[in-house]
Amino acid sequence: MSYLDDPGVLKAALVIVGNEILSGRTQDKNAHWIAENLGRYGIALVEVRVVPDIEDKIIAAVNDLRVGVDYVFTTGGIGPTHDDITAESVAKAFGMVLEYSQEAHRMLVEYYGSEEEVTQARAKMAMIPKGAGLIPNPVSGAPGFIIGNVYVMAGVPRIMQAMFDHVVKQHLRTGKIVMSNTVMFTLPESRLAEVLSAVQEKYDMIDIGSYPHFRDGTPSVSVVLRGTDEASLKASTKEVIERAAKMGGAPSALSLQVVID
Amino acid sequence: MSYLDDPGVLKAALVIVGNEILSGRTQDKNAHWIAENLGRYGIALVEVRVVPDIEDKIIAAVNDLRVGVDYVFTTGGIGPTHDDITAESVAKAFGMVLEYSQEAHRMLVEYYGSEEEVTQARAKMAMIPKGAGLIPNPVSGAPGFIIGNVYVMAGVPRIMQAMFDHVVKQHLRTGKIVMSNTVMFTLPESRLAEVLSAVQEKYDMIDIGSYPHFRDGTPSVSVVLRGTDEASLKASTKEVIERAAKMGGAPSALSLQVVID
Repeated sequence: MSYLDDPGVLKAALVIVGNEILSGRTQDKNAHWIAENLGRYGIALVEVRVVPDIEDKIIAAVNDLRVGVDYVFTTGGIGPTHDDITAESVAKAFGMVLEYSQEAHRMLVEYYGSEEEVTQARAKMAMIPKGAGLIPNPVSGAPGFIIGNVYVMAGVPRIMQAMFDHVVKQHLRTGKIVMSNTVMFTLPESRLAEVLSAVQEKYDMIDIGSYPHFRDGTPSVSVVLRGTDEASLKASTKEVIERAAKMGGAPSALSLQVVID
Repeated sequence: MSYLDDPGVLKAALVIVGNEILSGRTQDKNAHWIAENLGRYGIALVEVRVVPDIEDKIIAAVNDLRVGVDYVFTTGGIGPTHDDITAESVAKAFGMVLEYSQEAHRMLVEYYGSEEEVTQARAKMAMIPKGAGLIPNPVSGAPGFIIGNVYVMAGVPRIMQAMFDHVVKQHLRTGKIVMSNTVMFTLPESRLAEVLSAVQEKYDMIDIGSYPHFRDGTPSVSVVLRGTDEASLKASTKEVIERAAKMGGAPSALSLQVVID
Protein backbone atom coordinates (compact mmCIF):
# COMPACT_ATOMS: atom_id res chain seq x y z
CA MET A 1 0.00 0.00 0.00
CA SER A 2 0.97 3.58 -0.54
CA TYR A 3 -0.70 6.97 -0.48
CA LEU A 4 -0.87 6.49 -4.25
CA ASP A 5 -3.63 3.96 -3.54
CA ASP A 6 -5.78 6.78 -2.17
CA PRO A 7 -8.23 7.35 -5.03
CA GLY A 8 -8.29 11.06 -4.19
CA VAL A 9 -4.69 11.46 -5.32
CA LEU A 10 -4.54 12.20 -9.04
CA LYS A 11 -1.64 10.77 -11.03
CA ALA A 12 0.48 12.18 -13.81
CA ALA A 13 3.35 11.03 -16.00
CA LEU A 14 5.88 13.08 -17.94
CA VAL A 15 7.48 12.34 -21.31
CA ILE A 16 10.56 14.44 -21.99
CA VAL A 17 11.45 14.48 -25.66
CA GLY A 18 15.10 15.12 -25.28
CA ASN A 19 18.07 14.14 -27.41
CA GLU A 20 19.96 16.95 -25.77
CA ILE A 21 19.27 15.53 -22.32
CA LEU A 22 20.17 11.96 -23.29
CA SER A 23 23.44 13.13 -24.83
CA GLY A 24 24.43 14.78 -21.55
CA ARG A 25 24.56 18.23 -23.14
CA THR A 26 21.73 19.64 -21.06
CA GLN A 27 20.63 18.97 -17.50
CA ASP A 28 16.85 18.63 -17.50
CA LYS A 29 15.16 20.91 -15.00
CA ASN A 30 11.58 20.56 -16.19
CA ALA A 31 10.92 17.25 -14.44
CA HIS A 32 11.84 18.68 -11.07
CA TRP A 33 9.80 21.85 -11.60
CA ILE A 34 6.76 19.92 -12.82
CA ALA A 35 6.99 17.40 -9.95
CA GLU A 36 7.05 20.20 -7.41
CA ASN A 37 4.27 22.19 -9.00
CA LEU A 38 1.94 19.25 -9.61
CA GLY A 39 2.20 18.52 -5.91
CA ARG A 40 0.51 21.84 -5.14
CA TYR A 41 -2.55 20.67 -7.05
CA GLY A 42 -2.80 17.24 -5.46
CA ILE A 43 -1.40 15.51 -8.52
CA ALA A 44 1.37 12.98 -7.95
CA LEU A 45 3.99 12.47 -10.64
CA VAL A 46 4.34 8.69 -10.91
CA GLU A 47 6.70 8.23 -13.84
CA VAL A 48 9.09 10.22 -16.02
CA ARG A 49 10.50 9.00 -19.32
CA VAL A 50 13.20 10.74 -21.29
CA VAL A 51 13.06 9.52 -24.89
CA PRO A 52 15.03 10.50 -27.98
CA ASP A 53 13.58 12.57 -30.84
CA ILE A 54 12.44 9.40 -32.61
CA GLU A 55 8.79 9.01 -33.57
CA ASP A 56 8.34 5.38 -32.48
CA LYS A 57 9.85 6.08 -29.09
CA ILE A 58 7.59 9.06 -28.45
CA ILE A 59 4.50 7.15 -29.57
CA ALA A 60 5.36 4.16 -27.38
CA ALA A 61 5.96 6.31 -24.30
CA VAL A 62 2.74 8.30 -24.71
CA ASN A 63 0.60 5.24 -25.33
CA ASP A 64 2.20 3.25 -22.53
CA LEU A 65 1.66 5.98 -19.99
CA ARG A 66 -1.66 7.57 -20.86
CA VAL A 67 -3.74 4.55 -19.90
CA GLY A 68 -2.45 4.36 -16.34
CA VAL A 69 -2.63 7.97 -15.18
CA ASP A 70 -4.98 10.93 -15.10
CA TYR A 71 -2.66 13.24 -17.03
CA VAL A 72 0.38 12.89 -19.29
CA PHE A 73 2.59 15.89 -19.99
CA THR A 74 5.17 16.08 -22.72
CA THR A 75 7.94 18.64 -22.99
CA GLY A 76 10.04 19.50 -26.03
CA GLY A 77 9.97 19.04 -29.76
CA ILE A 78 7.17 21.43 -30.79
CA GLY A 79 9.23 24.13 -32.53
CA PRO A 80 9.59 25.04 -36.20
CA THR A 81 12.55 22.85 -37.21
CA HIS A 82 12.86 19.41 -38.81
CA ASP A 83 13.73 17.77 -35.48
CA ASP A 84 10.49 18.95 -33.85
CA ILE A 85 8.38 15.83 -34.22
CA THR A 86 6.38 15.72 -31.00
CA ALA A 87 3.09 17.05 -32.42
CA GLU A 88 3.08 14.53 -35.23
CA SER A 89 4.14 11.67 -32.95
CA VAL A 90 1.46 12.42 -30.36
CA ALA A 91 -1.17 12.70 -33.11
CA LYS A 92 -0.10 9.26 -34.37
CA ALA A 93 -0.26 7.86 -30.84
CA PHE A 94 -3.98 8.72 -31.02
CA GLY A 95 -4.34 7.45 -34.61
CA MET A 96 -4.86 11.01 -35.82
CA VAL A 97 -3.22 13.34 -38.31
CA LEU A 98 -2.20 16.96 -38.02
CA GLU A 99 -4.18 19.71 -39.65
CA TYR A 100 -3.61 23.42 -39.95
CA SER A 101 -5.31 25.11 -37.00
CA GLN A 102 -6.82 28.52 -37.75
CA GLU A 103 -6.84 29.31 -34.06
CA ALA A 104 -3.12 28.51 -33.77
CA HIS A 105 -2.54 30.57 -36.90
CA ARG A 106 -4.23 33.57 -35.26
CA MET A 107 -1.99 33.12 -32.22
CA LEU A 108 1.09 33.17 -34.45
CA VAL A 109 -0.12 36.26 -36.36
CA GLU A 110 -0.78 38.03 -33.09
CA TYR A 111 2.66 37.16 -31.73
CA TYR A 112 4.69 37.89 -34.86
CA GLY A 113 2.68 40.99 -35.75
CA SER A 114 1.48 40.22 -39.29
CA GLU A 115 0.39 37.50 -41.70
CA GLU A 116 3.66 37.83 -43.65
CA GLU A 117 5.71 37.07 -40.58
CA VAL A 118 4.03 33.68 -40.29
CA THR A 119 6.53 32.09 -42.67
CA GLN A 120 6.35 28.50 -43.84
CA ALA A 121 8.69 27.40 -41.02
CA ARG A 122 6.57 29.16 -38.40
CA ALA A 123 3.33 27.86 -39.91
CA LYS A 124 4.54 24.34 -39.03
CA MET A 125 3.80 25.29 -35.43
CA ALA A 126 0.09 25.63 -36.28
CA MET A 127 -0.11 21.99 -37.38
CA ILE A 128 -2.14 20.47 -34.55
CA PRO A 129 -4.11 17.22 -34.19
CA LYS A 130 -7.70 17.83 -35.32
CA GLY A 131 -9.94 18.86 -32.48
CA ALA A 132 -7.12 19.32 -29.97
CA GLY A 133 -7.43 22.19 -27.53
CA LEU A 134 -4.66 24.79 -27.62
CA ILE A 135 -2.39 25.88 -24.79
CA PRO A 136 -1.49 29.56 -25.19
CA ASN A 137 2.16 30.54 -25.22
CA PRO A 138 2.61 34.08 -23.89
CA VAL A 139 6.39 33.87 -24.27
CA SER A 140 6.98 32.91 -27.90
CA GLY A 141 3.60 32.59 -29.57
CA ALA A 142 3.44 29.01 -30.80
CA PRO A 143 0.87 27.10 -28.73
CA GLY A 144 1.00 23.71 -27.08
CA PHE A 145 -2.05 21.47 -27.27
CA ILE A 146 -4.26 19.03 -25.42
CA ILE A 147 -5.45 15.76 -26.85
CA GLY A 148 -7.28 13.28 -24.65
CA ASN A 149 -5.44 13.40 -21.34
CA VAL A 150 -2.12 14.39 -22.96
CA TYR A 151 -0.76 17.92 -22.55
CA VAL A 152 1.90 18.79 -25.12
CA MET A 153 4.18 21.62 -23.98
CA ALA A 154 7.38 23.33 -25.08
CA GLY A 155 10.79 22.30 -23.74
CA VAL A 156 12.23 25.74 -22.99
CA PRO A 157 11.61 26.08 -19.24
CA ARG A 158 10.18 29.62 -19.36
CA ILE A 159 7.68 28.66 -22.02
CA MET A 160 6.84 25.31 -20.46
CA GLN A 161 6.17 26.97 -17.11
CA ALA A 162 3.77 29.50 -18.64
CA MET A 163 1.93 26.70 -20.46
CA PHE A 164 1.80 24.57 -17.34
CA ASP A 165 0.31 27.42 -15.30
CA HIS A 166 -2.43 27.85 -17.87
CA VAL A 167 -3.12 24.12 -17.97
CA VAL A 168 -3.35 23.53 -14.23
CA LYS A 169 -5.57 26.57 -13.74
CA GLN A 170 -7.89 26.00 -16.69
CA HIS A 171 -7.94 22.28 -17.32
CA LEU A 172 -6.87 20.02 -14.48
CA ARG A 173 -8.83 18.77 -11.55
CA THR A 174 -7.27 19.21 -8.15
CA GLY A 175 -6.55 16.08 -6.14
CA LYS A 176 -5.95 15.40 -2.50
CA ILE A 177 -2.81 17.17 -1.38
CA VAL A 178 0.05 14.88 -0.39
CA MET A 179 1.82 16.27 2.66
CA SER A 180 5.27 15.37 3.89
CA ASN A 181 7.35 15.54 7.02
CA THR A 182 11.11 15.22 6.99
CA VAL A 183 13.15 14.18 10.01
CA MET A 184 16.94 14.20 9.81
CA PHE A 185 19.24 12.07 11.92
CA THR A 186 23.02 12.08 12.16
CA LEU A 187 23.14 8.30 12.13
CA PRO A 188 23.99 5.65 9.57
CA GLU A 189 20.79 4.63 7.78
CA SER A 190 21.13 1.02 8.91
CA ARG A 191 20.72 2.06 12.57
CA LEU A 192 17.18 3.23 11.78
CA ALA A 193 16.10 0.32 9.58
CA GLU A 194 14.18 -1.52 12.27
CA VAL A 195 12.46 1.59 13.57
CA LEU A 196 11.33 2.61 10.12
CA SER A 197 10.02 -0.74 9.10
CA ALA A 198 8.06 -1.06 12.35
CA VAL A 199 6.42 2.33 11.81
CA GLN A 200 5.86 1.63 8.11
CA GLU A 201 4.04 -1.57 8.97
CA LYS A 202 1.65 0.29 11.23
CA TYR A 203 0.80 3.10 8.79
CA ASP A 204 0.23 1.57 5.39
CA MET A 205 -1.11 4.72 3.72
CA ILE A 206 1.99 6.69 4.72
CA ASP A 207 5.08 6.17 2.55
CA ILE A 208 8.25 6.29 4.60
CA GLY A 209 11.40 6.89 2.60
CA SER A 210 14.90 6.89 3.95
CA TYR A 211 17.60 8.86 2.11
CA PRO A 212 21.20 8.56 3.25
CA HIS A 213 23.69 11.32 2.65
CA PHE A 214 26.89 12.66 4.09
CA ARG A 215 27.09 15.84 6.17
CA ASP A 216 30.70 16.92 6.46
CA GLY A 217 31.70 13.30 6.03
CA THR A 218 29.33 12.02 8.74
CA PRO A 219 26.69 9.55 7.60
CA SER A 220 23.24 11.07 8.00
CA VAL A 221 19.78 10.17 6.88
CA SER A 222 16.64 12.07 5.97
CA VAL A 223 13.48 10.19 6.77
CA VAL A 224 10.60 11.45 4.64
CA LEU A 225 7.04 10.55 5.59
CA ARG A 226 4.43 11.27 2.97
CA GLY A 227 0.66 10.89 2.86
CA THR A 228 -2.73 12.49 2.48
CA ASP A 229 -4.04 11.92 5.98
CA GLU A 230 -2.93 14.55 8.47
CA ALA A 231 -3.57 12.50 11.58
CA SER A 232 -1.61 9.48 10.35
CA LEU A 233 1.22 11.69 9.16
CA LYS A 234 1.41 13.35 12.54
CA ALA A 235 1.24 10.07 14.43
CA SER A 236 3.77 8.25 12.27
CA THR A 237 6.24 11.14 12.40
CA LYS A 238 5.94 11.23 16.17
CA GLU A 239 6.48 7.51 16.37
CA VAL A 240 9.63 7.60 14.23
CA ILE A 241 11.08 10.26 16.51
CA GLU A 242 10.12 8.46 19.72
CA ARG A 243 11.38 5.07 18.59
CA ALA A 244 14.62 6.56 17.27
CA ALA A 245 15.14 8.30 20.62
CA LYS A 246 14.97 4.93 22.36
CA MET A 247 17.75 3.77 20.03
CA GLY A 248 19.79 6.76 21.15
CA GLY A 249 19.15 9.03 18.18
CA ALA A 250 17.58 12.48 18.50
CA PRO A 251 16.67 14.22 15.25
CA SER A 252 19.28 16.71 14.07
CA ALA A 253 16.71 18.68 12.07
CA LEU A 254 12.99 18.70 11.33
CA SER A 255 11.05 20.03 8.38
CA LEU A 256 7.40 19.45 9.10
CA GLN A 257 4.43 20.30 6.94
CA VAL A 258 2.19 18.79 9.59
CA VAL A 259 3.45 19.95 12.94
CA ILE A 260 3.44 17.34 15.70
CA ASP A 261 2.51 18.08 19.29
CA MET B 1 18.15 7.48 -39.84
CA SER B 2 20.34 8.60 -36.99
CA TYR B 3 23.83 7.94 -35.72
CA LEU B 4 22.08 5.54 -33.37
CA ASP B 5 21.66 3.28 -36.40
CA ASP B 6 25.45 2.92 -36.59
CA PRO B 7 25.94 -0.59 -35.17
CA GLY B 8 29.25 0.57 -33.65
CA VAL B 9 27.41 2.81 -31.20
CA LEU B 10 26.48 0.92 -28.04
CA LYS B 11 23.21 1.77 -26.33
CA ALA B 12 22.24 2.10 -22.71
CA ALA B 13 19.12 2.87 -20.70
CA LEU B 14 18.78 4.11 -17.15
CA VAL B 15 16.14 3.28 -14.55
CA ILE B 16 16.06 5.72 -11.65
CA VAL B 17 14.26 4.27 -8.65
CA GLY B 18 13.17 7.51 -7.15
CA ASN B 19 10.15 8.42 -5.05
CA GLU B 20 12.10 11.43 -3.86
CA ILE B 21 12.64 12.62 -7.42
CA LEU B 22 9.03 12.08 -8.45
CA SER B 23 7.79 13.98 -5.40
CA GLY B 24 9.90 16.98 -6.41
CA ARG B 25 11.92 16.82 -3.21
CA THR B 26 15.20 16.07 -4.97
CA GLN B 27 16.57 17.15 -8.33
CA ASP B 28 18.12 14.11 -9.98
CA LYS B 29 21.69 14.66 -11.09
CA ASN B 30 22.64 11.07 -11.83
CA ALA B 31 21.03 10.94 -15.28
CA HIS B 32 23.03 13.91 -16.49
CA TRP B 33 26.28 12.59 -15.06
CA ILE B 34 25.74 9.11 -16.48
CA ALA B 35 24.76 10.48 -19.91
CA GLU B 36 27.93 12.56 -20.06
CA ASN B 37 30.20 9.80 -18.85
CA LEU B 38 28.75 7.04 -21.02
CA GLY B 39 29.47 9.26 -24.01
CA ARG B 40 33.19 9.02 -23.27
CA TYR B 41 33.01 5.27 -23.77
CA GLY B 42 31.03 5.36 -26.99
CA ILE B 43 27.81 4.34 -25.27
CA ALA B 44 24.72 6.38 -26.07
CA LEU B 45 22.02 6.78 -23.44
CA VAL B 46 18.77 6.18 -25.33
CA GLU B 47 16.16 6.25 -22.58
CA VAL B 48 15.75 7.23 -18.94
CA ARG B 49 12.84 6.20 -16.74
CA VAL B 50 12.16 7.50 -13.29
CA VAL B 51 9.88 5.05 -11.49
CA PRO B 52 8.50 5.00 -7.94
CA ASP B 53 9.73 2.60 -5.26
CA ILE B 54 7.07 0.06 -6.28
CA GLU B 55 8.13 -3.47 -7.22
CA ASP B 56 5.90 -3.88 -10.30
CA LYS B 57 7.06 -0.59 -11.74
CA ILE B 58 10.74 -1.43 -11.33
CA ILE B 59 10.26 -4.89 -12.83
CA ALA B 60 8.33 -3.49 -15.81
CA ALA B 61 10.94 -0.81 -16.53
CA VAL B 62 13.89 -3.22 -16.31
CA ASN B 63 12.23 -5.86 -18.47
CA ASP B 64 11.00 -3.33 -21.02
CA LEU B 65 14.39 -1.76 -21.45
CA ARG B 66 16.88 -4.59 -21.17
CA VAL B 67 15.87 -6.25 -24.43
CA GLY B 68 16.48 -3.20 -26.59
CA VAL B 69 19.86 -1.96 -25.38
CA ASP B 70 23.36 -3.20 -24.62
CA TYR B 71 23.31 -2.07 -21.00
CA VAL B 72 20.73 -1.05 -18.42
CA PHE B 73 21.78 0.85 -15.31
CA THR B 74 19.64 1.33 -12.25
CA THR B 75 20.25 3.86 -9.50
CA GLY B 76 18.75 3.90 -6.03
CA GLY B 77 16.98 1.60 -3.65
CA ILE B 78 19.78 -0.76 -2.58
CA GLY B 79 20.27 0.37 1.00
CA PRO B 80 19.39 -1.31 4.30
CA THR B 81 15.86 0.01 4.90
CA HIS B 82 12.37 -1.34 4.17
CA ASP B 83 11.96 0.98 1.16
CA ASP B 84 15.07 -0.39 -0.58
CA ILE B 85 13.47 -2.87 -2.94
CA THR B 86 15.57 -2.60 -6.08
CA ALA B 87 17.65 -5.77 -5.57
CA GLU B 88 14.57 -7.90 -5.02
CA SER B 89 12.69 -6.28 -7.91
CA VAL B 90 15.56 -6.74 -10.36
CA ALA B 91 15.97 -10.35 -9.25
CA LYS B 92 12.27 -10.91 -9.94
CA ALA B 93 12.61 -9.24 -13.35
CA PHE B 94 14.98 -12.12 -14.15
CA GLY B 95 12.77 -14.74 -12.46
CA MET B 96 15.34 -15.20 -9.72
CA VAL B 97 15.45 -14.92 -5.95
CA LEU B 98 17.93 -13.24 -3.66
CA GLU B 99 20.41 -15.22 -1.65
CA TYR B 100 22.95 -14.24 0.94
CA SER B 101 26.23 -13.55 -0.82
CA GLN B 102 29.35 -14.52 1.12
CA GLU B 103 31.41 -12.23 -1.06
CA ALA B 104 29.13 -9.28 -0.31
CA HIS B 105 29.25 -10.25 3.36
CA ARG B 106 33.07 -10.08 3.28
CA MET B 107 32.82 -6.60 1.71
CA LEU B 108 30.53 -5.46 4.53
CA VAL B 109 32.80 -6.94 7.21
CA GLU B 110 35.79 -5.22 5.68
CA TYR B 111 33.98 -1.88 5.50
CA TYR B 112 32.38 -1.97 8.96
CA GLY B 113 35.44 -3.47 10.63
CA SER B 114 34.04 -6.63 12.25
CA GLU B 115 31.49 -9.43 11.96
CA GLU B 116 29.45 -7.90 14.81
CA GLU B 117 29.05 -4.63 12.97
CA VAL B 118 27.27 -6.46 10.14
CA THR B 119 23.92 -6.17 11.86
CA GLN B 120 20.72 -7.67 10.55
CA ALA B 121 19.82 -4.41 8.78
CA ARG B 122 23.21 -4.21 7.11
CA ALA B 123 23.17 -7.88 6.18
CA LYS B 124 20.14 -7.10 3.98
CA MET B 125 22.63 -5.39 1.67
CA ALA B 126 24.35 -8.75 1.04
CA MET B 127 21.15 -10.26 -0.36
CA ILE B 128 22.02 -10.49 -4.06
CA PRO B 129 20.52 -12.45 -6.98
CA LYS B 130 22.25 -15.84 -7.19
CA GLY B 131 25.26 -15.77 -9.48
CA ALA B 132 25.23 -11.99 -9.92
CA GLY B 133 28.61 -10.25 -10.11
CA LEU B 134 29.30 -7.63 -7.46
CA ILE B 135 30.17 -3.98 -7.98
CA PRO B 136 32.51 -2.80 -5.20
CA ASN B 137 31.53 0.26 -3.19
CA PRO B 138 34.62 2.05 -1.90
CA VAL B 139 32.50 4.78 -0.30
CA SER B 140 30.07 2.97 1.97
CA GLY B 141 30.79 -0.75 1.66
CA ALA B 142 27.55 -2.29 0.39
CA PRO B 143 28.06 -3.47 -3.19
CA GLY B 144 25.96 -3.06 -6.30
CA PHE B 145 25.57 -6.01 -8.63
CA ILE B 146 25.41 -7.12 -12.24
CA ILE B 147 22.85 -9.53 -13.59
CA GLY B 148 22.61 -10.14 -17.32
CA ASN B 149 23.11 -6.74 -18.90
CA VAL B 150 21.68 -4.88 -15.89
CA TYR B 151 23.98 -2.89 -13.58
CA VAL B 152 22.41 -2.13 -10.23
CA MET B 153 24.00 0.86 -8.52
CA ALA B 154 23.40 3.08 -5.48
CA GLY B 155 21.49 6.35 -5.73
CA VAL B 156 23.81 8.59 -3.70
CA PRO B 157 25.82 10.36 -6.43
CA ARG B 158 29.25 9.84 -4.82
CA ILE B 159 28.65 6.12 -4.45
CA MET B 160 27.00 5.74 -7.85
CA GLN B 161 29.94 7.46 -9.53
CA ALA B 162 32.48 5.17 -7.90
CA MET B 163 30.44 2.12 -8.92
CA PHE B 164 30.04 3.43 -12.46
CA ASP B 165 33.78 3.98 -12.82
CA HIS B 166 34.42 0.40 -11.78
CA VAL B 167 31.77 -0.92 -14.16
CA VAL B 168 32.85 0.97 -17.27
CA LYS B 169 36.50 0.09 -16.71
CA GLN B 170 36.01 -3.57 -15.82
CA HIS B 171 32.86 -4.70 -17.56
CA LEU B 172 31.65 -2.62 -20.49
CA ARG B 173 32.75 -2.69 -24.08
CA THR B 174 33.66 0.62 -25.66
CA GLY B 175 31.64 1.75 -28.66
CA LYS B 176 32.23 4.22 -31.41
CA ILE B 177 32.56 7.69 -29.96
CA VAL B 178 29.78 10.10 -30.89
CA MET B 179 31.20 13.54 -31.57
CA SER B 180 29.32 16.81 -31.63
CA ASN B 181 29.68 20.30 -32.97
CA THR B 182 27.62 23.21 -31.68
CA VAL B 183 27.00 26.38 -33.65
CA MET B 184 25.14 29.25 -32.01
CA PHE B 185 23.17 31.90 -33.88
CA THR B 186 21.48 35.03 -32.58
CA LEU B 187 18.43 34.40 -34.70
CA PRO B 188 14.93 33.06 -34.11
CA GLU B 189 14.96 29.29 -34.67
CA SER B 190 12.38 29.55 -37.45
CA ARG B 191 14.82 31.54 -39.62
CA LEU B 192 17.11 28.51 -39.75
CA ALA B 193 14.49 25.83 -40.28
CA GLU B 194 14.98 25.52 -44.04
CA VAL B 195 18.78 25.52 -43.80
CA LEU B 196 18.77 22.81 -41.19
CA SER B 197 16.34 20.54 -42.92
CA ALA B 198 18.29 20.82 -46.19
CA VAL B 199 21.53 19.86 -44.45
CA GLN B 200 19.82 17.13 -42.43
CA GLU B 201 18.49 15.56 -45.61
CA LYS B 202 21.98 15.35 -47.07
CA TYR B 203 23.64 13.79 -44.01
CA ASP B 204 21.40 11.08 -42.70
CA MET B 205 23.88 9.64 -40.18
CA ILE B 206 24.35 13.05 -38.55
CA ASP B 207 21.64 14.14 -36.10
CA ILE B 208 21.02 17.85 -36.29
CA GLY B 209 19.23 19.30 -33.29
CA SER B 210 18.07 22.85 -32.89
CA TYR B 211 17.63 24.28 -29.39
CA PRO B 212 16.11 27.73 -28.99
CA HIS B 213 16.88 29.89 -26.00
CA PHE B 214 16.97 33.51 -25.01
CA ARG B 215 20.19 35.47 -24.56
CA ASP B 216 19.47 38.71 -22.76
CA GLY B 217 15.96 38.57 -24.15
CA THR B 218 17.10 38.02 -27.76
CA PRO B 219 15.97 34.80 -29.40
CA SER B 220 18.97 32.59 -30.13
CA VAL B 221 19.46 29.04 -31.20
CA SER B 222 22.11 26.39 -30.65
CA VAL B 223 22.45 24.00 -33.53
CA VAL B 224 23.97 20.72 -32.40
CA LEU B 225 25.34 18.28 -34.98
CA ARG B 226 26.14 14.83 -33.69
CA GLY B 227 27.58 11.71 -35.31
CA THR B 228 30.32 9.11 -35.38
CA ASP B 229 31.85 10.01 -38.73
CA GLU B 230 34.35 12.83 -38.55
CA ALA B 231 34.26 13.75 -42.22
CA SER B 232 30.45 14.02 -42.35
CA LEU B 233 30.39 15.96 -39.10
CA LYS B 234 32.92 18.42 -40.48
CA ALA B 235 31.15 18.76 -43.82
CA SER B 236 27.66 19.15 -42.36
CA THR B 237 28.81 21.73 -39.81
CA LYS B 238 30.49 23.71 -42.57
CA GLU B 239 27.37 23.54 -44.66
CA VAL B 240 25.12 24.79 -41.87
CA ILE B 241 27.41 27.79 -41.39
CA GLU B 242 27.68 28.56 -45.08
CA ARG B 243 23.97 28.24 -45.76
CA ALA B 244 23.09 30.32 -42.71
CA ALA B 245 25.51 33.02 -43.89
CA LYS B 246 23.58 33.26 -47.16
CA MET B 247 20.45 33.86 -45.09
CA GLY B 248 22.27 36.71 -43.36
CA GLY B 249 23.22 34.89 -40.17
CA ALA B 250 26.82 34.51 -39.01
CA PRO B 251 27.37 32.20 -36.01
CA SER B 252 27.64 34.07 -32.73
CA ALA B 253 29.66 31.25 -31.13
CA LEU B 254 31.15 27.88 -32.03
CA SER B 255 31.99 24.88 -29.89
CA LEU B 256 33.54 22.31 -32.17
CA GLN B 257 34.80 18.86 -31.27
CA VAL B 258 35.70 18.34 -34.90
CA VAL B 259 37.31 21.51 -36.14
CA ILE B 260 36.31 22.62 -39.62
CA ASP B 261 38.77 24.10 -42.13
